[in-house]
Parts: sequence; C-alpha cells; structure tokens
Amino acid sequence: MTYKIAILGASGYTGAELVRLIATHPDLKIAALSADRKAGLDMGAVFPHLRHLDLPTLARIDEIDFSGIDLCFCALPHKTSQDVIRKLPKTLKIVDLSADFRLRDPAEYEKWYGNPHSALEQQGEAVYGLTEFYRDQIRNARLVAGTGCNAATGQFALRPLIAAGVIDLDEIIIDLKTGVSGAGRSLKENLLHAELSEGSHAYAIGGTHRHLAEFDQEFSAVAGRPVKVQFTPHLLPANRGILATVYVKGDPQAVYSALENAYEGEPFVIMCPFGEAPSTRHVRGSNFVHIGVAGDRIEGRAIVVAALDNLTKGSSGQALQNANLMLGLEETAGLMLAPVFP
Amino acid sequence: MTYKIAILGASGYTGAELVRLIATHPDLKIAALSADRKAGLDMGAVFPHLRHLDLPTLARIDEIDFSGIDLCFCALPHKTSQDVIRKLPKTLKIVDLSADFRLRDPAEYEKWYGNPHSALEQQGEAVYGLTEFYRDQIRNARLVAGTGCNAATGQFALRPLIAAGVIDLDEIIIDLKTGVSGAGRSLKENLLHAELSEGSHAYAIGGTHRHLAEFDQEFSAVAGRPVKVQFTPHLLPANRGILATVYVKGDPQAVYSALENAYEGEPFVIMCPFGEAPSTRHVRGSNFVHIGVAGDRIEGRAIVVAALDNLTKGSSGQALQNANLMLGLEETAGLMLAPVFP
Amino acid sequence: MTYKIAILGASGYTGAELVRLIATHPDLKIAALSADRKAGLDMGAVFPHLRHLDLPTLARIDEIDFSGIDLCFCALPHKTSQDVIRKLPKTLKIVDLSADFRLRDPAEYEKWYGNPHSALEQQGEAVYGLTEFYRDQIRNARLVAGTGCNAATGQFALRPLIAAGVIDLDEIIIDLKTGVSGAGRSLKENLLHAELSEGSHAYAIGGTHRHLAEFDQEFSAVAGRPVKVQFTPHLLPANRGILATVYVKGDPQAVYSALENAYEGEPFVIMCPFGEAPSTRHVRGSNFVHIGVAGDRIEGRAIVVAALDNLTKGSSGQALQNANLMLGLEETAGLMLAPVFP
Amino acid sequence: MTYKIAILGASGYTGAELVRLIATHPDLKIAALSADRKAGLDMGAVFPHLRHLDLPTLARIDEIDFSGIDLCFCALPHKTSQDVIRKLPKTLKIVDLSADFRLRDPAEYEKWYGNPHSALEQQGEAVYGLTEFYRDQIRNARLVAGTGCNAATGQFALRPLIAAGVIDLDEIIIDLKTGVSGAGRSLKENLLHAELSEGSHAYAIGGTHRHLAEFDQEFSAVAGRPVKVQFTPHLLPANRGILATVYVKGDPQAVYSALENAYEGEPFVIMCPFGEAPSTRHVRGSNFVHIGVAGDRIEGRAIVVAALDNLTKGSSGQALQNANLMLGLEETAGLMLAPVFP
Repeated sequence: MTYKIAILGASGYTGAELVRLIATHPDLKIAALSADRKAGLDMGAVFPHLRHLDLPTLARIDEIDFSGIDLCFCALPHKTSQDVIRKLPKTLKIVDLSADFRLRDPAEYEKWYGNPHSALEQQGEAVYGLTEFYRDQIRNARLVAGTGCNAATGQFALRPLIAAGVIDLDEIIIDLKTGVSGAGRSLKENLLHAELSEGSHAYAIGGTHRHLAEFDQEFSAVAGRPVKVQFTPHLLPANRGILATVYVKGDPQAVYSALENAYEGEPFVIMCPFGEAPSTRHVRGSNFVHIGVAGDRIEGRAIVVAALDNLTKGSSGQALQNANLMLGLEETAGLMLAPVFP
Repeated sequence: MTYKIAILGASGYTGAELVRLIATHPDLKIAALSADRKAGLDMGAVFPHLRHLDLPTLARIDEIDFSGIDLCFCALPHKTSQDVIRKLPKTLKIVDLSADFRLRDPAEYEKWYGNPHSALEQQGEAVYGLTEFYRDQIRNARLVAGTGCNAATGQFALRPLIAAGVIDLDEIIIDLKTGVSGAGRSLKENLLHAELSEGSHAYAIGGTHRHLAEFDQEFSAVAGRPVKVQFTPHLLPANRGILATVYVKGDPQAVYSALENAYEGEPFVIMCPFGEAPSTRHVRGSNFVHIGVAGDRIEGRAIVVAALDNLTKGSSGQALQNANLMLGLEETAGLMLAPVFP
Repeated sequence: MTYKIAILGASGYTGAELVRLIATHPDLKIAALSADRKAGLDMGAVFPHLRHLDLPTLARIDEIDFSGIDLCFCALPHKTSQDVIRKLPKTLKIVDLSADFRLRDPAEYEKWYGNPHSALEQQGEAVYGLTEFYRDQIRNARLVAGTGCNAATGQFALRPLIAAGVIDLDEIIIDLKTGVSGAGRSLKENLLHAELSEGSHAYAIGGTHRHLAEFDQEFSAVAGRPVKVQFTPHLLPANRGILATVYVKGDPQAVYSALENAYEGEPFVIMCPFGEAPSTRHVRGSNFVHIGVAGDRIEGRAIVVAALDNLTKGSSGQALQNANLMLGLEETAGLMLAPVFP
Repeated sequence: MTYKIAILGASGYTGAELVRLIATHPDLKIAALSADRKAGLDMGAVFPHLRHLDLPTLARIDEIDFSGIDLCFCALPHKTSQDVIRKLPKTLKIVDLSADFRLRDPAEYEKWYGNPHSALEQQGEAVYGLTEFYRDQIRNARLVAGTGCNAATGQFALRPLIAAGVIDLDEIIIDLKTGVSGAGRSLKENLLHAELSEGSHAYAIGGTHRHLAEFDQEFSAVAGRPVKVQFTPHLLPANRGILATVYVKGDPQAVYSALENAYEGEPFVIMCPFGEAPSTRHVRGSNFVHIGVAGDRIEGRAIVVAALDNLTKGSSGQALQNANLMLGLEETAGLMLAPVFP
C-alpha cells in the first residue's frame, strides 16, 4: 500500500530534504507540496537538484485538499507552524519539524520563544519526536514534534548516561559545532558565503540558545530532578553536520557501556570503538548517528562525541523515521541510504 | 535473485562509492572486497562512513575465491588493473573503472599512458562504458571499460551535437572544472586541503590531459572523421562535481534540440530549460547529468554546460549502471538516489 | 606629508578592503567613513576584523565635511554613485569603484545598466582606472573610474595581445571563474553559504554580463576596430580570486612574448614561466596579477590564464594604486603586501 | 640599519609565512633560505605566492654562511631542530618555531615527544616565546622557543585568569577548533582536501595532545601549584585560524576585568565587548588575538573565547614579534597588517 504525503513548507532545506528522502521510499508518494511565497512554481525551479522528479506544483496551503492525505509533514517556521496546524483536520497524522510542539509546558514555550502558544490543544497531544526514546508513543501519536537538531545531538550523547546514573548531573558541558544549513534558507548577512566560510565562531554564548529548553525538559525528565547543562554552539564552515563534544564527570568505561547498552540493536546509532572520535563527514546525507567516547587524562572525566547530519537525522530523516512508525511501516524504510563521503 | 559482487580496490574513493551505492541496491550483495595494502582491515576502519554496513573484511586479491562471484568491479589504478584483469577468470563479468580498457588502439594507449598494454586480448573485447551510447553492446559484454570522468562529462555535452551535424567540428573548446575527489585518495602535496581550498587553477593546460585520448577516439568515431577538441581542466575547491563549459559554433536552438532529442527518455540525463545553466551542487551524490544550453550574443555560437558527480555518474554510478545491464537487471536499479543538496 | 582620505560606502567589502590596505599605508590617513544604513556605528562593529584600528565613526554622507579631504574613494553601488559624485565638491579628487564612470558612451551605459546617466559632466572627465594602461591620464585625473573586477582580469590577459596584433580578434573566448565576494555583501539567496559552497556554476551565460561593455569599449579602442569577445563567468566556492582562462588563436610564443614585453618592469604583473598556469590562491589578499601562457596541441592556438584577487587588484587595491598616482605618491605605496597563502 | 635574516625550513608553511611577513618589514632582509629536499629551487617554484620577491635560492643548511647573519629563524620539524641548533654558532640569535625548546624539564620533553633531548645546553638557555608574558627575558635572549599554536591560544585566554586568582584551577576545559595549516605541509591521508573539507572531528581526545605539556608547565608556573586542564582539539575545514572555547568557574565580570587589565596597552590583543564572541575569520593573516567573554546562565561560570591565526600570531608572527625585541627594534615592526576578510 502506498501512503499519500503532503509537505508544507517545501521551499526550505528541511522540506527539500524530505522530498529527497521520500523520492526513494518504497511506500510513500508525495501528493501535495506547499510554499506560500513560491506557490505556482515547480519544485525543480526552487530546488534544481530535484529536477528529475515528477512532483506536484507548489501550492498555497489553502489550496491543498487534505482529505486524501495520509500524513502531513510541516516544515514551516516556528509560530507559523502552530497557526497552520491548529486549522488542519483533527484526524490528519502530522509530523511537525518546527519548535512549536517540542515543549510540554506552555510557560516554557513562551519564555524561550517570546510569544504565547496559539495551539494549546495540539500542544497537549504532541509526542516528542526523538524516535529512539519515544518509539511507543510515536507509534500511536497523531502529532509528533520533531526535535531541535542540536537538541537531538546532545541527547544522543547524554540520555543513556543520565538514565544509567553514571555521570555527575551538575557538571555537563556541551560544546557543539554545527553546519550552516541548520539556520535555513533565510536571507541574513551572517549566512552569506563570504561571511561564513573559512572560519568559525561561537554564537548564542552564555546559555541563550533555545534548544536549551529541550535539554532542560528532557534531561530533567530522565533524571527525575532538574538538570541544567552548559551549551555553546559554534558555526562550522560546512553545510551539513553537527558535532557535539560533551564533557562529563564519570568513569569513561561506565559511560561507554551505558551508551553501548542503550543503543544495542538500534539501526541508526553506531558506537565507535572506545577511544575513537566520530566525524560529521562520515554521516553526511544519512540518518546515522556516530558516537565516540574517550577518558580524559584527569581521572573520573570522560568525553563523549556525537555526530549526525542536521538535515537528516537532526530533522527530516528523524521526521520520516517517525512517520514510518505512525503509518505502521518498517521504521527504517527509505532511510538506510549510506552517508556520502567524500 | 541476488547477485554476488566483488570490488577490487575498495580502499579508494571509487571503491567506497560502489559500496555506498550497492548498500541500498535491491539485487546485489557484496561478497568480496580487496585492498592490498589495507588487507585484514574492516571497511569501517578505512571508510568510517560505511561503518554501519555488514561487509566482508578487506582481503588481498589472491585471497578471493572468484568462483562464486557474478560480477567484479575493478577500481584499481591504471596499469595495475590490466595486470590483474588479465589473470581473472575468463568468464567473470567485469566492470573496470581504470583507464586501461578505454582506448581501442593499443598504440594510442601507449602514447598517452607511456607503457605498452599488457592485456591486449582483454582490451580487444572491452566495450566502452558510456551507457547511454553503448547500451546494447554493454548488455552483452563480459568486460566493460568505465570512461574517464572528465571524458564522460564532455561527451554528454557533445556527442549528440556531433552526431546531428549541428556544430563546427574544428572549433570545439571544453573548459572543464572538476572537484578534487577525481584525483583519488593519493598522497600528493597538491591535493592537501591547505593547497586546494579557497581557490582554483588550470592544470594539464595545452592539450596534455589523458582524457583527450577518449575525446579523440569517441568524437572521431561519431563524426566519421578526425575530431580534435581543445580541453582545459581546472581544479575546484570542492570534493565532488564536474562542470564542463563547452563552446561551440552552431545555431543555439539546433544545439538545444539535438540534445533534447538525444536524451528523450533517458532516466539520468536531464535538460535544463533553454538559457539556464546547471550547477554541480545539484547533482552531488547522484547518477544524474544536468545539461544547459544558451546562445551567445555573437550569432552562430552556443554554450553548452554539463554537470555531473565525478564519483557517481562519472565513475562508480556509471559502473553500476553498466553492471545492471550486464546482469539483466533494471538499468536504474539502486541508482535513483536524489542528489544531496545543500 | 599625510593625505586625508574619505571612504564612502565603508560597510561593503570593497570599502572594508580599502580600510585594510590604508591601515598600513605610510602617507594616508582615514578622516571620514560613510555608510548610510549603518551610520553611527563603529567600523569594528560592522567589520570586526578592523577592530584594532582607530577609525572615524560611520557617518551619513551629508554629515561629512569634505573641505579637509584630499581624496575620496566611492565604494557605493552603481547608480547611487553617480548621484553622490555629482554633488561632491568639483575640486575633490575621487576614485570611484562603481560601474558608473567606466563607459565613455552614455548610450552604452544606458544599454547595459538600464537607466540614463545622471552625471554626464563627471562621466566626461572620468579616466578609466586600469592603471598599467592609463597611468599618465590617471596621474592628472580628478575622477578615476575603477574597472570591473572581471573586466580587469580579462584585459590583463588580452590587451597586449590585441595591441601587438598577435591574435585573431574575432575568436576570443574568456571563460572566467570568480570568487563570491565580487557580488558584495548583499542579501541574496544565491549568495548564502549553503547555496554556493561545494560546487560551481556558470551565470550570465550567453553574453549578458555587464562587464562585456568594458571589454567592448577597451578592446575596440586598442584594436582600432570593433572587437567582440565571448565571456562566460562562473562562481567559485571561494571568497576571493578571479581566474580568467582565455582561448585565443595565435602563435603561443608570440603571445607569451607580447605579454612579457608589455609587463616588463610592471611591479604588480608577474609572468609565470611559459607553460605554467597561475592560481588564485597565490594572489589572495594582494595587488598582484599572475599570468601564464601555454600552447595548445592544436597548432596556432594558445591559452592565457590570468589570476588576481577581485577585492584587491580587481577593485580596492587598484583604486589605491590610482590614488597614489593622483596624489603624487609612489605608485606601490601600501600595496606591496605579499599574498596570504595558504 | 638593516638586519640579515636566515630562515631554515623555508619550504614549510611557517617558513613561507615568515617570508611573507618579512617581505614588508622595514628593517629586515632575508639573506639565506634553507630547505634540504628542495635545495636548488627558487622560492617562487615552491611557493608561487612569493613569486614577486627577490629571494635567495633555497640551499642546504650546510651551504649557509652564518657569519653575516644577525638572526636565524628555525622552522624545522621538532627533533630535527635540536640537532641543527646544537651545531649553529653559539652567538647567533635564534628564534625556533619547533617544539624542541618549549619545555624546561628534559624529562617532560622526553615523556611527551618520545626521545631524549639532544641539545640540553641550548634548552637550558631558551626563553619561552609567548611575547606578552616573557617580554623582558626575550629582549635579552639568544634563543627563543616559539610556543605551540594551540598552546598560545589557550594561554591568551587563561593566564591572566590564573594570575588574578579569579577561576577554579581544577575545573578548566579548553575545547579548541583549529584550521588545517597547523598540521603543516605533510603528506598525510587525513590532510587531503577530500578528507578534511565539509566537516569536523575531534582528534587527540582524552588528554593526549602534546601541547598539554606547555599548558601544564606554564599554568602551573603562573599558579604556583600544579594545574591540569582538559583540552580537546578539533579540526576545522579551513586553512587558518584557531578558536579556543574555554569553560571556567568564576565570576564572569571578574574574568572579563582580569583579561581587560592584563591586555591594556597590548598592541596585538584585542578584547571584544563583554558578551561578544570573536571569530577566526576576523584575525586571518594577522598577528592579532581577539578575546571574548560571556557569563553562562548557570551562576559562577564563564566562557572565554580566544581567536588567532595559527600561522601568524600562533607561530611566524609571534616569532617575528620576538625577533623584533631581540634585535632592539619596535616590537610591532612589520606586524601591523590588518586581517584579510572576507
């Protein structure tokens, strides 16, 4: 059986990445694509790398007939997303890629995003979309909230350690390096090639990045007590890839074992041999996460490094993995593409 | 039915690219991998992006039992390749990715490569592997010679024009820009990141690049008279991608029509609308070729631009496309992966 | 003696490059900087790489007192530039970096830029700023029009050949590769890092790039008859650097000699040994031009390759070289900085 | 007066960077260049970006007459350097850029570098070359040991904090990102463009990087007690630049004040406004260090970020700054070149 898919916000990078992945998915067919400002255009004019595909013309959201759609991906900016999703059919399965439904507490949402939430009912039913940790709820969910790409990377490194009680919860530092596509296709001076290439810098330093809200919510839930991490993101002169270097206090072997046990049998999470560090190059374009662990020369300290592709496992690949579960398909369907290297 | 595949030279980029593509191919299974200097290692240690796959350990060629192999890819350096292929079972289907079997005339081979050919018998039976133009011979071939990646790009732009008689055969200039992975994983100072990034230069200027031998052979064959083109390759600070900007004398619309007609129905060759130029970014990691045409302001001149990924359509993807034909499989099997952008 | 300098349009890349160069110039002092939208800001806030300098605060143009200024650089967008320069004191020495005063024929200006010229008086007195070929006029000029960066590169390769009569004037092709900073600091989707990095494409194909107007004007003047070249620019995934690969018909040795003779004693134009091609990496951040020549395998054809840094020799370095002459200073003052490699 | 300079190891990146800087230095003249394997070649053949300079031909070290040399830079690999310097005239002023004379304790040297030191006498007299902190000793030194580039970056961020007693000495983490040119011009597979571009990874994780020996020596000396930091370097896909993100426990304002006080009047160390983070792009090609500080959301924690160019302030620029002092010249002579951006 083939399921019919709509993608809202198809003119952004996560929308295009969904199309790329679904292009070779055995059970899904794209039935509708929206892009308000580019409505009327062919997808190939907006994203020439998709030129070879036979796709619906970009439409405005209000032009789409959702009655024949089995599942809808929303790749819209946050705030827009809640306004749109509030009005979609109540029975439509939805995977949202924005930040709008990630936080369970509306007050936390308002604190980090600056506006009151306009779709509290939907927020109440949304399931947090980190597949490996919410698999059963996702299978039965109507609305799944895709995680932040940085938030996903940090959680892959840390959740099993918090759950296993092998690290000091008050001494966690996440130093993260991210490719530029995570900032989307937006016209900002600091995203120009001439501004970004050939160097690196930290941004949102001092604990101000919004993905901290997800870390707080999730790590505290796993720990059963408040957990606050330090988190400093940096921009890499590369398009794809997130590398999270996580500094923890705990026994390195216990740290490694906790991760190895947690990810045994997971199709997308790959442990490097102990002492080896992963690279973003080696997950590029794929849904895989590579995780490495090393002990420091200072006893009782460990370094955990996690690498994933922000557009795939960090957003659109994760979204498709969740959609597979929601539709009763094989979780890995369409997602076993090997990374593209070099 | 699943066919068993061997890849010789799996520690190079074209070898790894074959593994990447075959990883999601429905009908092929990798049964043997060779890499003489890295024999005994796991593929994941040599190419960590393939870490998630269950692959045979790298072996020396003489350790491989070819009796159970249905088709063998040779991704060895030229000269090595002919020595190895000469000794392989005479009934084994082979797709060679080196330069060794591309030229039909042994004298031409010796002129451009500097050594007499050591496997003349195999050279005699080899079919030139530009699938779109040798499809029927490839279907029945035992040994197919993969084309040069630059040679493939130039031919996609020019063969239909020569065949249709719409351009001046004595006034063809190919200005080509190529990513660095085409030079392989070899330890050369000029391939270091610090030497290559952030700039560009021409190399092999003055008509000395070996792929000229392929242009001469193929274009002359199509034209039925000697054709000699000018060809200047440049290195791009990018890993993948070849862009051939081809200057011809002829009517631009006739040029466009000749290409459009030639590629009608071709699954991997995509024409841009007239006047639009393709980009290497939009074919990255895929088996697609994008071709654009524009007329110049000087009447009677046209510019044809062709873009492909040197590691995919330029070598390993092409090789797999040929293997599909040789094994009686769907030509596009495992090759419809959409390009990875950004 | 120290001369006082104003830079209008200091928030763009060419403005910042002027500041960088003047920072170590022995005889110049920056007395005023304008940037209308960023007026009131420190230069270090707009360009942190200039943070260490003691510079005037960015002002609106109408806030600047030009009475104490010896020379003014205009690094404004074209069209804005003519409106501003029309109103500047008639005795002020000006080096303009825009396209507004490059073309001598107002009709040509209107044809290529789409609007009638608004400062015809100033256009009439402007001297074309390609220093090596207009040195004497520049020395006595009040207003010098900086050349297009692509136009400069092509002219360095071709002017001596046209002047010497060693090439066929109807068969000139300029295939040019340019870094992205030439497009300025403007917010366009196609200048984003994610859109531009890791690949290349041709733009303005078919003879539509505005720098063709300069080629037409200059080459025809040198030849004493109309000369029309073919010119196709490509974007490189690099910030700085232009590489012009020029295809000509003529004797390669005669071509080399004509260039060698023309540039003998020139401080900034360096000939590579015959047969060697230059690289943009090797002129980065400097005012040097490197030129190489090779013969093709087809007799009677030569390839000339010229490399320069679009922001330095292609615009701001050239502008400073001209300013030096206009102020009676050593032409090379402040400009002998060696290229930055790697 | 002009001083005569020799550079040993001129075919590496730090050697070439010395030539670049000295090219516009008012008081120095390059009298000899060595490069054993490339002896007999012109510098322009080895580094075409220096093609415009009139330089001595590359020679073997034993061909150089040191009697007329005022100061010698040794840009040789470590271990080679000590063997060469041991045999140089005892009165020759030397700035060594290798690791050989950085560590005062020969046992520490042997522990981190794996071989006993062969020039103990010279090691005994060497002064550690971090100019801002050893200025007086350097002025009177015969032999100055250039610091590690990573070691310099970390020390700029931390020395004043340790000296001022404003941070917890047992809780210091340095997460460092470095451009690839720091690894030199060596033929290693992991330095190829195809391996390094478009991604990032940690290396030497777990406290194994040799620059830790410098951190231990220097921080312990400043503190007057043993200090051991955590240090994880990462490779950036960029040629130049080091960014050190340093996590400390202490009051952020006290941290900022300590740095501001320490660097008041320093010509090359620039503090960003509180809360702002520097970028490697903004120091590229220059001798400047930019330092930023922010407080974390967790009270009592601060983040210090330092950025410099590994080839300039991290090695060759630092070396020249030291040479200026040793020769009684202005410390900043030849070093005020503004960074090259973009």
